[in-house]
Amino acid sequence: MINVGIVGCGYWGPNLIRAFTEVSDARVIAICDISADHLAAMHRRYPALRTTTNFDDLLAAPDLDAIVIATPVATHFDFAMAALRSHRHVLVEKPMASSSDDAARLVDEAARQRLTLMVDHPFIYSSAVRKIGELIRAGDLGDLYYYDSVRINLGRFQSDVNVLWDLAAHDLSILDYLIGTPPARISATGARHLEDTAHNIAYLTLFYDSGLLAHAHVNWLAPLKVRRTLIGGSRRMIVYDELEPSEKVKIYDSGAAPSANDDVSREMRIGYRTGDMWAPRLEVKDALETAAAHFIACIAAGTPPLSGGESGLRVVRQLEAATQSLYADGRPVPIVAEQRK
Amino acid sequence: MINVGIVGCGYWGPNLIRAFTEVSDARVIAICDISADHLAAMHRRYPALRTTTNFDDLLAAPDLDAIVIATPVATHFDFAMAALRSHRHVLVEKPMASSSDDAARLVDEAARQRLTLMVDHPFIYSSAVRKIGELIRAGDLGDLYYYDSVRINLGRFQSDVNVLWDLAAHDLSILDYLIGTPPARISATGARHLEDTAHNIAYLTLFYDSGLLAHAHVNWLAPLKVRRTLIGGSRRMIVYDELEPSEKVKIYDSGAAPSANDDVSREMRIGYRTGDMWAPRLEVKDALETAAAHFIACIAAGTPPLSGGESGLRVVRQLEAATQSLYADGRPVPIVAEQRK
Amino acid sequence: MINVGIVGCGYWGPNLIRAFTEVSDARVIAICDISADHLAAMHRRYPALRTTTNFDDLLAAPDLDAIVIATPVATHFDFAMAALRSHRHVLVEKPMASSSDDAARLVDEAARQRLTLMVDHPFIYSSAVRKIGELIRAGDLGDLYYYDSVRINLGRFQSDVNVLWDLAAHDLSILDYLIGTPPARISATGARHLEDTAHNIAYLTLFYDSGLLAHAHVNWLAPLKVRRTLIGGSRRMIVYDELEPSEKVKIYDSGAAPSANDDVSREMRIGYRTGDMWAPRLEVKDALETAAAHFIACIAAGTPPLSGGESGLRVVRQLEAATQSLYADGRPVPIVAEQRK
Amino acid sequence: MINVGIVGCGYWGPNLIRAFTEVSDARVIAICDISADHLAAMHRRYPALRTTTNFDDLLAAPDLDAIVIATPVATHFDFAMAALRSHRHVLVEKPMASSSDDAARLVDEAARQRLTLMVDHPFIYSSAVRKIGELIRAGDLGDLYYYDSVRINLGRFQSDVNVLWDLAAHDLSILDYLIGTPPARISATGARHLEDTAHNIAYLTLFYDSGLLAHAHVNWLAPLKVRRTLIGGSRRMIVYDELEPSEKVKIYDSGAAPSANDDVSREMRIGYRTGDMWAPRLEVKDALETAAAHFIACIAAGTPPLSGGESGLRVVRQLEAATQSLYADGRPVPIVAEQRK
Repeated sequence: MINVGIVGCGYWGPNLIRAFTEVSDARVIAICDISADHLAAMHRRYPALRTTTNFDDLLAAPDLDAIVIATPVATHFDFAMAALRSHRHVLVEKPMASSSDDAARLVDEAARQRLTLMVDHPFIYSSAVRKIGELIRAGDLGDLYYYDSVRINLGRFQSDVNVLWDLAAHDLSILDYLIGTPPARISATGARHLEDTAHNIAYLTLFYDSGLLAHAHVNWLAPLKVRRTLIGGSRRMIVYDELEPSEKVKIYDSGAAPSANDDVSREMRIGYRTGDMWAPRLEVKDALETAAAHFIACIAAGTPPLSGGESGLRVVRQLEAATQSLYADGRPVPIVAEQRK
Repeated sequence: MINVGIVGCGYWGPNLIRAFTEVSDARVIAICDISADHLAAMHRRYPALRTTTNFDDLLAAPDLDAIVIATPVATHFDFAMAALRSHRHVLVEKPMASSSDDAARLVDEAARQRLTLMVDHPFIYSSAVRKIGELIRAGDLGDLYYYDSVRINLGRFQSDVNVLWDLAAHDLSILDYLIGTPPARISATGARHLEDTAHNIAYLTLFYDSGLLAHAHVNWLAPLKVRRTLIGGSRRMIVYDELEPSEKVKIYDSGAAPSANDDVSREMRIGYRTGDMWAPRLEVKDALETAAAHFIACIAAGTPPLSGGESGLRVVRQLEAATQSLYADGRPVPIVAEQRK
Repeated sequence: MINVGIVGCGYWGPNLIRAFTEVSDARVIAICDISADHLAAMHRRYPALRTTTNFDDLLAAPDLDAIVIATPVATHFDFAMAALRSHRHVLVEKPMASSSDDAARLVDEAARQRLTLMVDHPFIYSSAVRKIGELIRAGDLGDLYYYDSVRINLGRFQSDVNVLWDLAAHDLSILDYLIGTPPARISATGARHLEDTAHNIAYLTLFYDSGLLAHAHVNWLAPLKVRRTLIGGSRRMIVYDELEPSEKVKIYDSGAAPSANDDVSREMRIGYRTGDMWAPRLEVKDALETAAAHFIACIAAGTPPLSGGESGLRVVRQLEAATQSLYADGRPVPIVAEQRK
Repeated sequence: MINVGIVGCGYWGPNLIRAFTEVSDARVIAICDISADHLAAMHRRYPALRTTTNFDDLLAAPDLDAIVIATPVATHFDFAMAALRSHRHVLVEKPMASSSDDAARLVDEAARQRLTLMVDHPFIYSSAVRKIGELIRAGDLGDLYYYDSVRINLGRFQSDVNVLWDLAAHDLSILDYLIGTPPARISATGARHLEDTAHNIAYLTLFYDSGLLAHAHVNWLAPLKVRRTLIGGSRRMIVYDELEPSEKVKIYDSGAAPSANDDVSREMRIGYRTGDMWAPRLEVKDALETAAAHFIACIAAGTPPLSGGESGLRVVRQLEAATQSLYADGRPVPIVAEQRK
């Protein structure tokens, strides 16, 4: 049995508490938040939980094996580093840290201590993204042409990060999982429409050496909620709609392929294939529970998590480059290859 | 009665023939195409039409008042210039020409000859875009924050232009109509996935001095057809879905506005207003018929068209800048102010 | 070449004119309507058409091989009988006639004269319904459990028939095509909400001896347009949405089947199978053009049409029974087997 | 503080436990189920709960004020009567009982004991149905023409009741809330497709003396989940889609009204008004929590619940009549007026 403490019970924390409650080898025993109201609401629901407004109480608890961090991004590094130094396994909400330097230091500390450091990249634990990964790895899509994601809603403005760090972080983590290698360079554009806030709308283009083009549209100020990703390949195309209740992943046989006949005009040479559509059955499993169970299993077995610290670091590096481009109205910024020992 | 000749009966030409057939003060009397099959198909439907494969026959026809050009973009300039020089009014399919130099020469020639020169920017003649224009001009949206358009489908690859010139031209013409002033600079990214073809997917960001951010996602290789535009303002937001049968324009009272209370944290200071949604009744009128009737009315009255040559020229200038940025992976390109006499 | 005359150019007639214009072995040469405005509008579009307000002119025309009837239902019998007696092949809009007696007399007259008599049951010529027919006949759905159709919109109130004769006629013709045998009995309920009009909303249940239950909801006074049919079988289920642009027919592997284990409670014994969904590619062909071409081909070959007079008669019989039940608040009415020589 | 015990922790019980956990004046202190697994799963989530497999333990508990019954329908009467006789307030899941006789006896017992007896008709506590009720009462819809509900999915087959008692019970309770008076007669059709099970698909028509026609389509064996209700009135129409995330209730100004001009043909006399659509903001509140809080408030104040025993009895009467008609293939069955003292 792994005993878990959770810091941050505002927006995402309660979801993590619920998820760990369903994991059979884990037990949430203590929670921490600066708001007594948040703690009281959680205690009402889970009367057995110990609560505190002081993070040091978690660090001092003799029975805590792991600490889950669901606080604002700016505080991730301090909480995570303190937890690692007190020899606790750590699961930190995405994005991992405010800077790649901080993220790298956490990776190093966890390695030094031989502790499990995992980032909560929730979508890579969903049945839909898992299925898409299978299809890509099996070559069902052919060469990957594009990944196009729209992730918008009337959202919580966050004070300490722009919309890329909040929403595009999901796409960067999904791409990290699906593609394996980082993009070569990034261009981002966007705007800040309310005084004293960060960019609330942004468009992100990732250029991969393979020819793949990835794009994310993220927006905190949209009149409707959209979570839709198109993935185009030379053989098949996917529409992945996270909000679709039953057919989240649709696979289209339709595509375009150059025809063999060189005599006809170029317009004619594009042969449109339009074929069947297929929506595979997806396992009904809560992604967050799967992630929580994976964290616990990695601790127990000492194996590296699918979304370990290195993955979190790669995502933060790309967010830094994207933000740099954002302030330069789209000027492309190269992603420097990782050179760490 | 204005007598009209049409050159180009492939993809869009038949729609223009049909549209002019419904205009009471116009009569299509002659059509021209290099394909005898296209001409035969049209003649079957409209047995009274004169047909020719030689454009000079149109120029030589003594009874033709106006020539409509629905041929590939690369040929627009030659056909349009020849028509103007033979003293015919001209309606040319969008985009107006392959270069801003060519477009400017057409504008000058039409001015010199006091002829009507109109570009077929069809959406600005639709009830939906007209209604949006009314709402914006009435201040119902407040300050304009963003315009976000997705215009994708499994489309005709065109041999002589990239996807921006085909699809983003619509958004540039809609923005030209809605906003009035051109953007200050443009960033575009994209990719070409099939050999020997132009860019088939592109993302376009337009930066306006007012703070408005406009974006278009255009794609010839998408598994599904989308024609959806979000327009965000400080007071209201619009979802305009061209494919929605009955409620093309939805107006949302919801928005975010900074609250007056400075004491609370920044996250708290964003007050989310979420209110009613409203879908106004739109007049059921075919946009292309409206455009055709407008062209005929402008000829008759000698008044300048809503989408005259100057508007076509502004769109072409922006397409040139966008293509330049496209080849530079998003590097922003300024839009030079027009300085023509 | 078959020369066609069309009577009725109001609502549906123009669609039939357009459809026959695209059939290579047919030529529409004359049209008839009581409204000079309707005729003028058609003549503007098709200047070669002869027009008349007198149906006798069609009967007297020496060059007419076939007459197409697109007039109000109450007039179908007179026009069709006169056309058959003047030895013209006849295509009549659905429903075939106002009573089964009239319908039977038309069938007899056509047989006596060895003429082609076809009813325009347009949906059975659509790619979607054809594909569904193939799947059913191949046994892909298993035993048929139910057919459930919703066919509603803000529609044209018709003065001479209730909503069943207008809209449910489509479902009865589709079922006649898919199932082959008529239902054993019919129950219908409905209401008339406006003075001096027929029933404007109705619900129709058809009981088949096989155990199949079919139902149609038809409504002229609905706020939105729906054309959706669910077909449930023991092995697969279909969702057929006529308004869906690209995926009109979706096939679900999911279903329920009694499990083998008798020990568990009955609720447990229903094993829910939930599997993949599949949307087959459908040929893009206009159903009305297919129907028009089929009519011409049947005349040329002397073969019986898919929706010949007998099919039209079966549909009218069922509409009569349904109307009888409608006035008795759902009391079931048996369908008498046809006993005609 | 009202102390609550809950019997039945299978399908719906856990939702009720969660709902009462959020009500500030209530405390769930004990639960009962025949399955030790169900009890263990609940205890894991709520470690403070007392659990038992013996209902008598609830009856014997000295600290229980109210008992909530979420067991199969066939057991409702026995549990509810025992609870009332042990002087506990009762909330029973819908439908209230297996027969109107049983339902009436519960109503009488609660009256005799002056206890709160409430039926969990959850939708009448939702913001959407509340808003619809307001609109109807304010006359915004004009005369009510029809109520048409589709309530289908791939559902749990229940062993002891047919699909009407499971799903149509919702529509009957919504209508009881919206209309106030019961229908005059009922016609129902349906089928049973799996051996040893009850009817799994049914169509229900309710005839009201006012001219209102109500209909429900309920189906446990549908390939997709639909929860959509259309409500048509002489002035406005409503589309209520329970599964729509943000715009559950849409109000259409469009309708048809007889025009004043008697000279034109009847078809012409129907003037189609097509106007704006409007989706009011709905309060975001969980319907089940609202129902739970209402139950507690009624106990505290001694006031009758919105969905008290009489309402539950009316719904059961109509379910009985509907089932009778179901076995007679749609023959209409009158609803006998209540004559109880």
